[in-house]
Amino acid sequence: MQIVKTIKEIRNEIKRAKSSGKSIGYVPTMGFLHDGHISLIKRAHKENDFVVVSIFVNPTQFGPSEDYESYPRDLNRDANLAEKAGADIIFAPSVKEMYPDGFSTYVKVYGNISKKLCGQSREGHFKGVTTVVSKLFNIVTPDRAYFGQKDAQQLAIIKKMVKELNYDIEIVPCSIVREKNGLAMSSRNTYLNTEERKAALILSKSLFKAKEMIENGENNPEKVRNFIIENIKTEKLTEIDYVEIVNADTLDNIDKIKGKVLIALAVKIGQARLIDNIQMEV
Amino acid sequence: MQIVKTIKEIRNEIKRAKSSGKSIGYVPTMGFLHDGHISLIKRAHKENDFVVVSIFVNPTQFGPSEDYESYPRDLNRDANLAEKAGADIIFAPSVKEMYPDGFSTYVKVYGNISKKLCGQSREGHFKGVTTVVSKLFNIVTPDRAYFGQKDAQQLAIIKKMVKELNYDIEIVPCSIVREKNGLAMSSRNTYLNTEERKAALILSKSLFKAKEMIENGENNPEKVRNFIIENIKTEKLTEIDYVEIVNADTLDNIDKIKGKVLIALAVKIGQARLIDNIQMEV
Repeated sequence: MQIVKTIKEIRNEIKRAKSSGKSIGYVPTMGFLHDGHISLIKRAHKENDFVVVSIFVNPTQFGPSEDYESYPRDLNRDANLAEKAGADIIFAPSVKEMYPDGFSTYVKVYGNISKKLCGQSREGHFKGVTTVVSKLFNIVTPDRAYFGQKDAQQLAIIKKMVKELNYDIEIVPCSIVREKNGLAMSSRNTYLNTEERKAALILSKSLFKAKEMIENGENNPEKVRNFIIENIKTEKLTEIDYVEIVNADTLDNIDKIKGKVLIALAVKIGQARLIDNIQMEV
Repeated sequence: MQIVKTIKEIRNEIKRAKSSGKSIGYVPTMGFLHDGHISLIKRAHKENDFVVVSIFVNPTQFGPSEDYESYPRDLNRDANLAEKAGADIIFAPSVKEMYPDGFSTYVKVYGNISKKLCGQSREGHFKGVTTVVSKLFNIVTPDRAYFGQKDAQQLAIIKKMVKELNYDIEIVPCSIVREKNGLAMSSRNTYLNTEERKAALILSKSLFKAKEMIENGENNPEKVRNFIIENIKTEKLTEIDYVEIVNADTLDNIDKIKGKVLIALAVKIGQARLIDNIQMEV
């Protein structure tokens, strides 16, 4: 399997695939692939003739005090994993290739959907995400692009961007992949030591319990939210960033748990800021 | 020739043209076509197999006190003119089709290139332009798109956007078309009464004289700029917005007239705010 580093090369390969009538599936990643990514690639492989995986740790979506420098990277390992999962080509551009000198064009989804949840503590994060995803969409021009539900807010924002900027691309949301113990797969889990990793289980446990509460008839979002907060606080290593129960499409607050709801949280444990969520139809 | 109003229809027509191997030329306009637009359509017709002309008075590029409501519109007249010039299809969407309820995604080119010249007095104008052009590019997916040099700043910003967001589209700049008396063609010329139209000739006259000055060896931008300002002021009906001499690609100020330079101006006459410019290689 080929690994290409320039926009020109990936364009040529995609043009070649398209000219022989192949459909293009695309999985954008920041690399250090885990089973979550692998599930996206496998699905893309199943539903398309030619699968492009990009690996690019995008600097514009990291804040100045965030983990851009320390974010884990291992291209060879990623390439092997991606190939086994069904990738046909890896696009791994340099920062200079994606952001040449003087770069100043940005795509931004304004409004509540970008401001709340992770938007509150990660100023500019989603502007970086939508900008790089626009660029990557223009480069790869896929028929379908695959995104994990774990980044639920990112997914909602990208769906809105695709609709409003009229990208002719189907966005395929894919379920969160968890370890057996419930921990949501994340490249940032590598930041956790043994003790922290154990503490991190409280995130999914709280979400599962909240889901049960709702299935048993609780429809007051404040009650469920407080339950989750109290639950997480029983783990001393946790520092809650947010716990929110919102409309799954718009991310607007809700008075009553009904319809498509998203229960999302972000919690700091040691060096890692972990996110997790559960989506349900009530 | 077909006039289509929905994104779905234009996409279908373009897919059909592409599937029979046709290249797509695209001329985005706000309608009320004049000979400037016609020259773009003719060129697109010469260089492509299938020519799309869009007619859309884009509300997001007008300021609250600008002429969005009064901007001249005549779709039937436009369709006839476009067809004669070689258009294969007209895309004339409604505002609702382009900006559905809750729309909040914008594309913006930051920096000097957007802030100066027209950016100074038309807050948000270019953000509206780059947003609608991104959308239209995603809908039409042309091989080549044609823009008039008259909107020199718009052209420079769109070139930067296309490069930085990696649109695989060739931007073709086309020369300003002038009336015999020198007045640059503009849909906004319809705002001028007879007296104002006469006064408006001072714009191109000043630019032509400035060009001569430079050809005769003057290389001090401040001297040429002052000459133009004094010249325009001799016409009592004029109110200068700006006169600037800048680098033609970056729109940065220059100390010396050398290389590719742009002499650009905006002047209010009656209800009309007119722009004109001259580009030269020194």
